[in-house]
Amino acid sequence: MTVYAAPTRDMLFVMTELAGLDEVAALPDYQELGVTDVAEAILEEANKFASEVLAPLNWGGDQQGARMENGQVISSPGFVDAYKNFAEGGWNGLSAPIEYDGQGLPELLNTPTYEMWNAANMSFALAPLLGAGATECIKHHGSDELKATYLPKMISGEWAGTMDLTEPAAGSDLSNVKCRAVPEGDHYLINGQKIFITWGDHDMTDNIIHLVLARLPDAPEGVKGISLFLMPKFLVNPDGSLGARNKVDCVGLEHKLGIHGSATCTLAYEDAVGYLVGNLNQGLMHMFTMMNEARLKVGIQGLAISERAYQAAVAYAKERVQGFAMKGTRGGSRVTIINHPDVRRMLMTMKSQIEAMRAFNYLIAMHMDMSAHHPDPEARKAYKTRLELLIPVTKAWCSELGIEIASIGVQVFGGMGFVEETGAAQHLRDARIATIYEGTTGIQAADLAGRKLVMDKGAAMASVIADMRAVEEQLAGASSDDLAAIRSSLGEGIKALSIGTEAMLAAMAQNPSAAIANSVNYLMLVGYVCGGWQMARAALVANQKLAAGEDTDFYQTKLITARFYADQILPKATALAQTVKAGGESTLALTEEQF
Amino acid sequence: MTVYAAPTRDMLFVMTELAGLDEVAALPDYQELGVTDVAEAILEEANKFASEVLAPLNWGGDQQGARMENGQVISSPGFVDAYKNFAEGGWNGLSAPIEYDGQGLPELLNTPTYEMWNAANMSFALAPLLGAGATECIKHHGSDELKATYLPKMISGEWAGTMDLTEPAAGSDLSNVKCRAVPEGDHYLINGQKIFITWGDHDMTDNIIHLVLARLPDAPEGVKGISLFLMPKFLVNPDGSLGARNKVDCVGLEHKLGIHGSATCTLAYEDAVGYLVGNLNQGLMHMFTMMNEARLKVGIQGLAISERAYQAAVAYAKERVQGFAMKGTRGGSRVTIINHPDVRRMLMTMKSQIEAMRAFNYLIAMHMDMSAHHPDPEARKAYKTRLELLIPVTKAWCSELGIEIASIGVQVFGGMGFVEETGAAQHLRDARIATIYEGTTGIQAADLAGRKLVMDKGAAMASVIADMRAVEEQLAGASSDDLAAIRSSLGEGIKALSIGTEAMLAAMAQNPSAAIANSVNYLMLVGYVCGGWQMARAALVANQKLAAGEDTDFYQTKLITARFYADQILPKATALAQTVKAGGESTLALTEEQF
Repeated sequence: MTVYAAPTRDMLFVMTELAGLDEVAALPDYQELGVTDVAEAILEEANKFASEVLAPLNWGGDQQGARMENGQVISSPGFVDAYKNFAEGGWNGLSAPIEYDGQGLPELLNTPTYEMWNAANMSFALAPLLGAGATECIKHHGSDELKATYLPKMISGEWAGTMDLTEPAAGSDLSNVKCRAVPEGDHYLINGQKIFITWGDHDMTDNIIHLVLARLPDAPEGVKGISLFLMPKFLVNPDGSLGARNKVDCVGLEHKLGIHGSATCTLAYEDAVGYLVGNLNQGLMHMFTMMNEARLKVGIQGLAISERAYQAAVAYAKERVQGFAMKGTRGGSRVTIINHPDVRRMLMTMKSQIEAMRAFNYLIAMHMDMSAHHPDPEARKAYKTRLELLIPVTKAWCSELGIEIASIGVQVFGGMGFVEETGAAQHLRDARIATIYEGTTGIQAADLAGRKLVMDKGAAMASVIADMRAVEEQLAGASSDDLAAIRSSLGEGIKALSIGTEAMLAAMAQNPSAAIANSVNYLMLVGYVCGGWQMARAALVANQKLAAGEDTDFYQTKLITARFYADQILPKATALAQTVKAGGESTLALTEEQF
Repeated sequence: MTVYAAPTRDMLFVMTELAGLDEVAALPDYQELGVTDVAEAILEEANKFASEVLAPLNWGGDQQGARMENGQVISSPGFVDAYKNFAEGGWNGLSAPIEYDGQGLPELLNTPTYEMWNAANMSFALAPLLGAGATECIKHHGSDELKATYLPKMISGEWAGTMDLTEPAAGSDLSNVKCRAVPEGDHYLINGQKIFITWGDHDMTDNIIHLVLARLPDAPEGVKGISLFLMPKFLVNPDGSLGARNKVDCVGLEHKLGIHGSATCTLAYEDAVGYLVGNLNQGLMHMFTMMNEARLKVGIQGLAISERAYQAAVAYAKERVQGFAMKGTRGGSRVTIINHPDVRRMLMTMKSQIEAMRAFNYLIAMHMDMSAHHPDPEARKAYKTRLELLIPVTKAWCSELGIEIASIGVQVFGGMGFVEETGAAQHLRDARIATIYEGTTGIQAADLAGRKLVMDKGAAMASVIADMRAVEEQLAGASSDDLAAIRSSLGEGIKALSIGTEAMLAAMAQNPSAAIANSVNYLMLVGYVCGGWQMARAALVANQKLAAGEDTDFYQTKLITARFYADQILPKATALAQTVKAGGESTLALTEEQF
C-alpha cells in the first residue's frame, strides 16, 4: 500500500501564480471571505485529513470493498467514521452556497481539496463528488420547498446524494431511459431499475437523496420525454425528521476492476415516491447542469490518481537498490533505481504531465468561478465560452493520462508493481474507470469537435490559440536555453493545434462521420498543447522568480519540468495533428463484416 | 468472459506472403518435413485446442487462480487435464529437436501456435513458454547425460521446466544473485531463496525441472561468479524413474494484478541437489541462450492478448445497441455501437497494430530459423545480426502495445468493461506483466540503443532502413490513393527513424546517460516504423492479389488496415524522433531531492 501527502506547494503555486486566485478572490461574491488569506490554511487542513484519514483507508477499501448484507450496502472498514469526520470538517460544503449552509468558497479553492480526496481515496471521494452533482441540480431546478428540505443536509454531508441515470439499455445514450413515473398527489410513483449507480446505497449517512431520470407514461419518445425526480431513501416528514423507508432498494453490486471501496449498485424502484425537479420532460437538460462540474471533477481524478501513483513511484525509486551507476561499470557500488536514466524518464513523464494537468484543471476551475461570479455579463460570457470549449478536454485528456501515468507507476515498481500488496496496481485499476464514466472519452471528443468547435466556427479555439501565441511571444525575450527550447516546442505545438483545428473544421463541414472518427485525436492534441501552454506560463513565472532569488529549489524544478514537457511530451501534438489531417476515411472504410 | 478463435487466415497470410515460409521450408533441415504442406493443418488443429480447450479455462483461471495446499501448488480448475492433452497433442515439442523426440518444425510455424496458446490462456501458456526456455538452455549447455535424462521428457511435456533467476535483491540485475551451491560428489547442494518463479510449482506434471542461478562459495563477485544448475523437483533414478523428493519447496504465492492462473512462487532450497549446466561461473551467459526465444515469446504475448481483446471488443461492438447513426438524427432507429465512428477508431487502432505486430513477430521468428538453419554461414550471420538488433523491439514494443490495446478493449465495452464478468478487464490485467518480465521495456531499450546499435555503429539498423526504402520505392509505382498515402507515411516514418538513429548514435557517443534516458522512445520509434514497413509490404501483396481478383474480401480489408496504420499510427514516429533529437538532458536534470 502507498502513502500520500498533498503537493501543497505546487497547488498554491498553480492557484496563485497561474490560475489567478487573486482575481477570483476579488470578485464581489468572494471579497468578504478573505479567500487568499485562508487558502493556504485550508489546503493544510485538507492535506491533514486526506493524508491521515482518507489515504490509510484506500488499500483496505480495495481489498475489502463495499458489500451487501440483508439488502443493505456495508461500506469498507473505516469509511463510515471517515465520512462523518469529512462532513463535520465542513469539507462537503466548501464551495456550496452560504444560504444553504455551505461555505461559499470558489471552485478554485475547492478543486485542490478534490484533488486531495481523490488522490487519498478515489472510492471515498466519489461519494461527495456525486453528492455535489445532485446538490447542484436541486439548487438550480428544485422548488423552494425541495431546496429548503434537502439542500442544507446534503451540503452539510448529513445526507448523501446520488445520480441515478444509467439503465441496461441506456448508458451513453440516456434518451433510451425506460423507468416510469406516474403522478400521485404532490409526488410521483416510480418503477424500474437502474444500474451502475455509484454509491447508490451505503451506511455512511442517515439518508440518501437520489436524483432519478424517468419517463411519464404519456411522455414523448427520446430525449424530450425524460423528467428528473428527487427520490429520498427515507421519506422526510414535514418537520424534517425521517419517515418511512422509500421503496428504492439495492439489489446487486458490481464486481469491478477497481474503485472497490465505492459500491456500484443496481437499484430497483417499486412504487418509489419521487418529487419532480424542474419541469416535466426537461430532465436531461436539468441533469446536464451539473455536467461541467462533474467533468472537471473526473478530470481531477485523473490528475489525483497520477499524483498518488507518482509519489509511490518516487518513494520506491529512492529506496530500491538495483544495478550500478552508468559511468562506473560493474566495479562500482549498487545504486537506487532513481539513478537509472530510464527510471528518470518515467518519473519525469509522470511529474511533468501531472503539473501540466494541475495547471490546466485549476485554470478551468477559475473559469467556473469567473463565468458564474464575474460582475460583468460580457466577461461572464467570455469565461463561460472558454469553459464550455475546454471542459471536455479537462475530463478526457486528464482521465486518459491518469491511466497512462498509473501504468507507468506500475512499471517503476518492476515486478513488485504487479504484486497487489505494493498498491501500485490499485492505482491503475482505479484510474481505469475515469475515461468511461461521466461520458466516455469518445463522447467528450464528439462534444468538443462536433459541437463546441463547430458552434462558433472555431472562434473560441482561435481565442485560446491567440492566448497561447502571446505566451510564445513572451518567451521570445528570454535568453536562457530552457526558455528558448520551451518557446520553440510551444511554437510547434501551437502550429499543430492550428493545423488540427483547421483540418477538423473542414472535415466537420465535409464528412462529419470521418471528422468524429478523428475527434479523440483532436481532443488529445488540444490537451497536450494546453498542457504545454500552461507549463510555458509556469516557466515564465519560474524564470522571474529565479532572477529574484525566490524559492530557487522549487522554481528550478519547475523550469526543468517545463523543459522536459517541451522536449518529451509536447511533440506528441505534431503527430496528433498529422492524424487529424490524414482524415478519418480509412477509419470508416471497412464493412461491419470485415472486422 | 470472452471467447477466442485463432485468426488463421491472417496467420497464414503473414507466414506465407510476408515472413517467407517457403524459404524456411526449403532449408535443408526442414526440407523433408513438408512444412508448407502441414502448416495449415497444424494451425487448424492448434486453433481447435486453443479455442475449445484453453480459452474456456481462461476466466476460471483468473477467478480461481493457482493456490497452495499443504505446501503443494494446486492449479486452476481444468488446467491439469488441459496440460496433459497439450502434451499428448505434441504441442510442447513442435519446434524441439527431433533427436530428443521433438517434431523439429521451424519457429515460424511454432510461433502462430504460441500466439494461440497465449491468446487463449496466457496463464496456461506460460508453463510451456518457461519450459521451452529451460529446454533450450539444457540443449545448448547440458552434458550428454543431462540431455539424455531430461530433454525427452521435458520436450514431450511429461515433465515441466522453469527458470529460477530472481531473488529479492536480484531482479533486473542478476549479478547480485546470492543463492549458494556447494559441490558434493557429482552434484551440488544448493541453498537459498528465489522469488517470482513462474509456474515454480504445480500439479500438472510428475516432475518439474528447475534451472537455477547460484554461486559457489569461492566464486568471483558479480556476473562472473554465477553458475547454472539443473534441479529436479524429484530426483531421477538411473533407470529414469522418479526417486526422492528434492528439497525445493514453494513457500508462498504472489497475489498479483493478473495471470492468476499461473502460480508465481517463492521457492526455498535447503540442500537441494543440483547438477551443473555448462561451465562454472558462466551461468548468466548460458541462461541468456534462451533469451532471444523468450523475448520473442513475450512479444507474442503482447500480440496475443491484443488479439483476444480485439475479438471481444468486436463481438461486443456488433451486439451492443446504443445511440443513433450519425446521419439520421434522433429520429432514426438505434444502432449497434460498431456504427459509431469513435468505436471504429478504437477497433481499427487495435486491428491495425495487431496485424503490424503479427507481421513483425513472425518475421523475427523467420530470422530465428534462418540464423540457426541456413546452410550458408554468411547468411546465418546476417540473419543473426538483424535478429539480435530487433529482438528487444519485438519484446518491448509488442508488450507495450499489448497493454494499450487491452485497455482500448475495456473502453469499447464502456461501463461493462469495468465489470470483471465481461472479461475485458482480465485481458488488461494479464497484459500488464509483459512489459516487466523477461527484461523490462527499459532494459530492452538499453540493449537496443546502448549495445546493439552502438556495437556496429548503426550498420545493422542502416540495413533495415535500406530494406524499408526498397519497399517505399516499390510503392512509388502504384497508382492507387491508398498505396500513395501508405508510401508517403512510410517515407515520413523512415525519415523519422533515420533522424532518430543518427541522434541516438550521436548521443551515445557524447552523453550515454542522456542517450539511454531516451532509449525507450527510440525503441518505440523503431517498433512503429517496423510495423509500418511490414504493413506496407502487406499492402503491396494485397494490391497484387486484388488485381488478380483473389480473395478480395481479405485483401481489401488488409489494404484498408494498412492505410489506417499509415494514416493514424505511423505518425507517432515523427513525434518520437523529435523526442530523441531533443536529447535526454532535461530528463536527468533534477536532483534526487527535487522529485
